[in-house]
Amino acid sequence: MEAPETLTARLHGPDQPGIVARASRWIFERGGNILNADQHRDPTTESFLQRLEWEHPEADLAAEAAAFRAFAEGELGMEVHTQLSTHRPRVALMVSRIPHCFQDFVLRWHSGTMPCEIACVVSNHKDLRSFAKSFGLPFHYLPIDGTAKEIGEAEQLEALAQYEVELIVLARYMQVLSPAFLARCGCPVINIHHSFLPAFAGGRPYHQAHARGVKLIGATAHYATADLDEGPIIVQDVTTISHRHGVADLLRRGSDLEKSVLARAVRYHLDSRVIAFGNKTVVFD
Amino acid sequence: MEAPETLTARLHGPDQPGIVARASRWIFERGGNILNADQHRDPTTESFLQRLEWEHPEADLAAEAAAFRAFAEGELGMEVHTQLSTHRPRVALMVSRIPHCFQDFVLRWHSGTMPCEIACVVSNHKDLRSFAKSFGLPFHYLPIDGTAKEIGEAEQLEALAQYEVELIVLARYMQVLSPAFLARCGCPVINIHHSFLPAFAGGRPYHQAHARGVKLIGATAHYATADLDEGPIIVQDVTTISHRHGVADLLRRGSDLEKSVLARAVRYHLDSRVIAFGNKTVVFD
Amino acid sequence: MEAPETLTARLHGPDQPGIVARASRWIFERGGNILNADQHRDPTTESFLQRLEWEHPEADLAAEAAAFRAFAEGELGMEVHTQLSTHRPRVALMVSRIPHCFQDFVLRWHSGTMPCEIACVVSNHKDLRSFAKSFGLPFHYLPIDGTAKEIGEAEQLEALAQYEVELIVLARYMQVLSPAFLARCGCPVINIHHSFLPAFAGGRPYHQAHARGVKLIGATAHYATADLDEGPIIVQDVTTISHRHGVADLLRRGSDLEKSVLARAVRYHLDSRVIAFGNKTVVFD
Amino acid sequence: MEAPETLTARLHGPDQPGIVARASRWIFERGGNILNADQHRDPTTESFLQRLEWEHPEADLAAEAAAFRAFAEGELGMEVHTQLSTHRPRVALMVSRIPHCFQDFVLRWHSGTMPCEIACVVSNHKDLRSFAKSFGLPFHYLPIDGTAKEIGEAEQLEALAQYEVELIVLARYMQVLSPAFLARCGCPVINIHHSFLPAFAGGRPYHQAHARGVKLIGATAHYATADLDEGPIIVQDVTTISHRHGVADLLRRGSDLEKSVLARAVRYHLDSRVIAFGNKTVVFD
Repeated sequence: MEAPETLTARLHGPDQPGIVARASRWIFERGGNILNADQHRDPTTESFLQRLEWEHPEADLAAEAAAFRAFAEGELGMEVHTQLSTHRPRVALMVSRIPHCFQDFVLRWHSGTMPCEIACVVSNHKDLRSFAKSFGLPFHYLPIDGTAKEIGEAEQLEALAQYEVELIVLARYMQVLSPAFLARCGCPVINIHHSFLPAFAGGRPYHQAHARGVKLIGATAHYATADLDEGPIIVQDVTTISHRHGVADLLRRGSDLEKSVLARAVRYHLDSRVIAFGNKTVVFD
Repeated sequence: MEAPETLTARLHGPDQPGIVARASRWIFERGGNILNADQHRDPTTESFLQRLEWEHPEADLAAEAAAFRAFAEGELGMEVHTQLSTHRPRVALMVSRIPHCFQDFVLRWHSGTMPCEIACVVSNHKDLRSFAKSFGLPFHYLPIDGTAKEIGEAEQLEALAQYEVELIVLARYMQVLSPAFLARCGCPVINIHHSFLPAFAGGRPYHQAHARGVKLIGATAHYATADLDEGPIIVQDVTTISHRHGVADLLRRGSDLEKSVLARAVRYHLDSRVIAFGNKTVVFD
Repeated sequence: MEAPETLTARLHGPDQPGIVARASRWIFERGGNILNADQHRDPTTESFLQRLEWEHPEADLAAEAAAFRAFAEGELGMEVHTQLSTHRPRVALMVSRIPHCFQDFVLRWHSGTMPCEIACVVSNHKDLRSFAKSFGLPFHYLPIDGTAKEIGEAEQLEALAQYEVELIVLARYMQVLSPAFLARCGCPVINIHHSFLPAFAGGRPYHQAHARGVKLIGATAHYATADLDEGPIIVQDVTTISHRHGVADLLRRGSDLEKSVLARAVRYHLDSRVIAFGNKTVVFD
Repeated sequence: MEAPETLTARLHGPDQPGIVARASRWIFERGGNILNADQHRDPTTESFLQRLEWEHPEADLAAEAAAFRAFAEGELGMEVHTQLSTHRPRVALMVSRIPHCFQDFVLRWHSGTMPCEIACVVSNHKDLRSFAKSFGLPFHYLPIDGTAKEIGEAEQLEALAQYEVELIVLARYMQVLSPAFLARCGCPVINIHHSFLPAFAGGRPYHQAHARGVKLIGATAHYATADLDEGPIIVQDVTTISHRHGVADLLRRGSDLEKSVLARAVRYHLDSRVIAFGNKTVVFD
């Protein structure tokens, strides 16, 4: 009742008159009913971006999705992604030793508020194995040797391959993924960086923040790209600090930010609300 | 360049399939190009709400607006408001003695960031006359006698009538407008209340907040209705306080909130982004 | 190194000249070194409130604490609480079926960022037993029968009695504790209410918030008192919502607030930073 | 009643045991009564920082201030600043053409919520002369020629010299002050930078923020030092933005932040709540 089965499409391409009208007419004429429609025109790149969500009780939604993609790619010249509300994307979590983002994500999933399947956990440490196991999650311990990173990454990719993963979430994974990994993993990767980017990119951002004497600390969830800490930003948030807070306090206060910022970003992605273009995102919230 | 002349329409009415498609097709087939489209379906009332903004370089936009209203009212069963981007709504400011919201609003308008004309100022005190005059604003000093309020309000309505006002902004106007005034003034009225409604409705909200020992204080901009402090909320915001803050500090810190919350709400209204329905609003931001 | 052993005292009583000087001199003359000193004077009640933290490497801190209490109670007329930094207060968690606050608290404790011992968990439902057990926590399932609440509460008090609990945390415990329970439990009780009190006191606050059309939702951590939702507020925070959010979204977004607000409040309490007086608190952050 | 005449001292120097006790004893023994005491120990530099505020109804507060400085400098080895609550520091405003911070500051001063005297306004443009004059403020139009900046700055210093200024506020003054100017002006200088430093230092920060696709924009008030945008930060704040906001929207939304962040920072300074040390500040709020 609450949540009828729906079909969501994200469109992205060169702007031209009539896209809104033609896309909505296509849906209407086949008998669909649009529930949500949000759209954006980026003036710098003259591109059109849209999210459409509709219901079509009598139709086979998978077939409708394929037909819509054919239409919007062929006739509107758009790049199109479709997603059924009944589909729960398969997510792999990558994590090192710091537990809070990982555990928080698992608990959200377990309580039903994170609409995905957690396909597996990949870690370069063993620390979080028992927590993962207590929720029935496959856990792959694959250490990374700094001098032979490509070997470790090859093992990770092999492990991931068996799960048909649609999204990788780096829940405080403390290794930089190589461009080769990102090119071969075959799905988007969302990372949480523990600063308000572009401030304090790189390592030990809370130490940097403390040394600079800022009055706010932040967290940034972004798509991972070959340029470290330069990927399209999905969500950012901050919290206040003062001279009374040492680095340990920043780590603790920041961890709350990291958890909620990462969860909000992944949720937007899973709800098919994010379109990355260039080094930016549109988030249809 | 930056801002082409556009036409914005707000639609509100009973939901039915195909409204998005039919409205956008109407615009497209007449040669318009939709720049922004946002839409909402309220499940409780089963109503449809939409904001459409489009350009139509070759057309007479005023004629297009009239034609669209006729179409959307007649064929879609919607309540429709249209607005041209070239039109600057005429606003009346009502204020008593507390200056910050009033002065802030005038300065925004003067610097060009508040897209309206300030048609006149109506006050039950003389204090802000010289400030208003220094910006060339007509200032009507019309005191309200508590025992004969209807007489004072009648004078206010008479003064307002000559300006063809489209919006009244209560910038800390410390008198309650009677239901009769609201019924007769002929335009929406936006009020700023100095608390996070519904907490601390009524008088002296900062004193109430201090007595209760809250850790945040807020401000609420809402459409004024016959039920005091119960009108549809447009914008709310809060700021932190602590035990170190007395009532005077709350007044001072709150005044910053009031200025920005009122300005944001009026700006949303002027940009034709707000639809009030029942005791709520949709704000297409 | 990072954290030397320290002694913290909270003072509260009628203001009089010289308290700051006399308390700091007492510490100095016995050889202690003040690391943190914060103080507040409440003008309404003319009361003095202070938090002092000092180190005294050569002394027996427990003996110093007792001596300071005797001094400050006897000579300064203050109500005094002392706490050693090496002491980890014993906390009981009470919870019903909603897991997020409970699980979040347990994970903070487990990762070492919540300076307490979790002595036991008391619940009127069985749902969270296995999670509690996986962290080795005693779990008491004691259902409450609405028609014989005093019997259930007596069983709860009996269970709690064996743990010498110093703080009870209601982590979304969905029963109202009776005044008798609060009088007999022998320690402070911190509750999380899922609204920005005093707005939306009572039941189903997210439903109330949705019905009113507010643009922010909040959470409030407070000491539980016999007057439901009227206890001294420790921490409050809010997050933005819009017309796009239904009640289910409010519940989900609010749960993040609840977790962090409750954790911040309990942490302030455990760090001996809170003094409740009347229906307010001073939080020396 | 509300605000008795008080004396405030800020202390800063190498930490050593007993400073809190000795300073408070000195005040107590002379008959003063401490109203507020806040203190901080910076572990990195092992320095002690304190703010003390006390009343002494029978004494000559100026004499007490001098005596306290002699005591705390001589016996405690501290750097000391004292300030009487009856003293309203003389402030010079420097501004270019962008009016909002300047006008906001003037209105706060005029309404009595900014505890200072505005001694004069110095501008390299004429635009804001009439606004300044309408509030009776001396206005010095002193243009800066980029090729002979030292001449312009010399004229500014000469103009400032006659006012015995205790603080210079750069209210969106769009010229970089030379190290020579800062060395010779003889008082602290507070600047507002329109980004969340250290992100987007340098010119056109809103353009930089838009290009990077951040989801928050910020403002930073800091003491101006010879290293541009590297001075000790006093206050920072942020506001959310989205893909819907172009550079013009960022400018507009940011201007509200700038006004409030600058006002808060200056107010903290005027209340003698800020101690700068190294590239950081302690703000005793």
